[in-house]
Amino acid sequence: MKAAIITIGDELLIGQTIDTNSAWIGAELSKSGFDVSRITSVHDRRDDIIFALNEAAGKTDIVLITGGLGPTSDDITKQTLCEFFNTHLIINDEVLNMIEKMMILRNFPMNEKNRRQAEVPESCRVLKNAAGTAPGMWFEKEGTIYISMPGVPYEMKYLMTELVLPELNKRFTSQVIIHRNIMTYGTFESKLADILTDFESGLPESIKLAYLPASGIIKLRLTGTGADYNSLLKLINEQAGKLYKIIPELIYAEDEESLEMVIGKLLKSSDKTVCTAESCTGGEVAHLLTSVAGSSAYYKGSVIAYANSVKTQLLGVGEEIIEKHGAVSQETVKDMAIGARKLLKTDFAVATSGIAGPDGGTETKPVGTIWIAVASGKEVICEKHVFGNDRNTNINRFTLAALNLLRKQIIKS
Amino acid sequence: MKAAIITIGDELLIGQTIDTNSAWIGAELSKSGFDVSRITSVHDRRDDIIFALNEAAGKTDIVLITGGLGPTSDDITKQTLCEFFNTHLIINDEVLNMIEKMMILRNFPMNEKNRRQAEVPESCRVLKNAAGTAPGMWFEKEGTIYISMPGVPYEMKYLMTELVLPELNKRFTSQVIIHRNIMTYGTFESKLADILTDFESGLPESIKLAYLPASGIIKLRLTGTGADYNSLLKLINEQAGKLYKIIPELIYAEDEESLEMVIGKLLKSSDKTVCTAESCTGGEVAHLLTSVAGSSAYYKGSVIAYANSVKTQLLGVGEEIIEKHGAVSQETVKDMAIGARKLLKTDFAVATSGIAGPDGGTETKPVGTIWIAVASGKEVICEKHVFGNDRNTNINRFTLAALNLLRKQIIKS
Repeated sequence: MKAAIITIGDELLIGQTIDTNSAWIGAELSKSGFDVSRITSVHDRRDDIIFALNEAAGKTDIVLITGGLGPTSDDITKQTLCEFFNTHLIINDEVLNMIEKMMILRNFPMNEKNRRQAEVPESCRVLKNAAGTAPGMWFEKEGTIYISMPGVPYEMKYLMTELVLPELNKRFTSQVIIHRNIMTYGTFESKLADILTDFESGLPESIKLAYLPASGIIKLRLTGTGADYNSLLKLINEQAGKLYKIIPELIYAEDEESLEMVIGKLLKSSDKTVCTAESCTGGEVAHLLTSVAGSSAYYKGSVIAYANSVKTQLLGVGEEIIEKHGAVSQETVKDMAIGARKLLKTDFAVATSGIAGPDGGTETKPVGTIWIAVASGKEVICEKHVFGNDRNTNINRFTLAALNLLRKQIIKS
Repeated sequence: MKAAIITIGDELLIGQTIDTNSAWIGAELSKSGFDVSRITSVHDRRDDIIFALNEAAGKTDIVLITGGLGPTSDDITKQTLCEFFNTHLIINDEVLNMIEKMMILRNFPMNEKNRRQAEVPESCRVLKNAAGTAPGMWFEKEGTIYISMPGVPYEMKYLMTELVLPELNKRFTSQVIIHRNIMTYGTFESKLADILTDFESGLPESIKLAYLPASGIIKLRLTGTGADYNSLLKLINEQAGKLYKIIPELIYAEDEESLEMVIGKLLKSSDKTVCTAESCTGGEVAHLLTSVAGSSAYYKGSVIAYANSVKTQLLGVGEEIIEKHGAVSQETVKDMAIGARKLLKTDFAVATSGIAGPDGGTETKPVGTIWIAVASGKEVICEKHVFGNDRNTNINRFTLAALNLLRKQIIKS
């Protein structure tokens, strides 16, 4: 089945916003077996939108549209869709109620612009948007489905995940496609591809392997295509089993699970607690741990010790240790972990100290250097890594390395 | 002058790569006064590429094309361009020499694939690519200029900056376009649009206003189009000046500046320091503060007090306070800020306590509720907000609200 994506918004054309919606929608549709044949970005201009819709009409089974649904006058997608589908705007009471409730909750008075958010083309089916005020809209015309969604990424993702993808998957029963996503951490793409050369060339024809690297994590996606679900599932599981034998130390989970989710499950099931003592990661390890719902069951708190005085006074790192070995050293990070574990009374403590950059590097400790320690009741394990030059990439890499060491120590204990 | 961008590559359609090239090219062209009327992404497929080229032909003055110029067999842009321009591939000796030199420098043997990189359509003008092996190509046909460049971002940027933009600017002495981006925080898009109704309708015809909301921040973009740079600049600055009079309390910066960058500048220039005491934000306030390069000059550290025991034992919040008012209360958050400021010895402390969800809400304190406090030497200011239901959106909104209160208090002090 063929799909097209149209993203609408001046900000996309003048380069003020990078179109991440298309990539996300493209990935989701392709998992469902759709062939996304084109992505078009156009201005909030009537002619451009109509032209893009006409181009897609007839050539594709579904057209996914995002953007231009805000309450302000520069957003004209709804009016233009009315013209394209030869219909007109009417107030949808259910949407209006929802917006009114949302405004009351947030203590904002309802105004004319909010009310206009509840207007929808009469001929569409409304897709209720629990993540925002602009509803999604589902149209069908001459064999093609058109779905219009807000451009705000989390609202679009809400509608796609909850309503659009389930219905599309139901309607287009195609060839069976099975994906199995295996999450790895701890190596580079080119090195992983090297290790998996024989595995890849030995794959049966119906199964494909894709490398999907994203900021330090590499997702390996096995995609099987066939006629029979059960035999395809068996085949894909056999191949996944092989991967687990070749790279057991790199695989940490499946599907979209993050390191922090895996850590959460491990701690919950063993009834253990954790805290962090962070220097260079500046709270990002804590942030990721607490981004998991229910994390208060196992995460107690952190000390972000950016200044050395906080390392010594709160975490009890000896001043002479920092003087002799430096703040970025095995000795300091070890004492930070021990100190935090004692102070915050947890089973595990993870500590980080490094140089995120752009300044602060030296010959022996270049920008990108990090020391990590994980303390448990039994032992303290330390690790050193050297990453690159970009501050925010480094903070991200540091954080993943710290989470991965924590994960391994929880499993070991 | 009208421009179109075509990006070619399977990876763009299946969401494996986000199309950042288009955004970069769009920004550069728009600075030069071009109206980028559409961006199209298509597969490495002959029919799709030809279709996209035909669409752009005649409608635009220039067509910028990236991707599909690699040495592997899936890249077919060059052959397809030959077909579109009715020409054929020939070896370009100059490019071949350059590739041979590059290979020697990198200690790689020359192979057939490298040699094929030196093939170019006979009718094009070659744009020498000092940043890689695939040259750029300049075509003209029936009044439209077509420029094909590699998809590797730094190679494309090299060609654009060194060769393409200078020539386009020379050829098309164009209209002037000036953008001014005004960053606001503290209200919803619909409410802001309400406040600015009169301002918007009073704008001169050559100036347009766009609302660009992104996770809590609304960027207001004034775009002016005209013949003369200086008079346009004067006009746009007048309008921006009006905005500063209408919504002074909402504007916090211009261009792409974030709240944490503004805070960093304010603290640095006043030689003041800050720490955080975070519950529901779980380290995200600290993370954003420390994402700014050079933040160690003013940020000392944080206590992430997720568990109540950390609030009482480390930050000195009275147990009876938490018992009587709850952890999410003005009283608790006030004492957290005071306690952190004392413990970490800073000029300012910002504290957060709220319910990010999905669980933990009550009738009087629903999910999305947050109390924020900022303590300075003079006073402690507290604020309450109620946001929505999604955990990660809430953490983000909570964090921005905390940063904004901190910003206001630093300015006031």
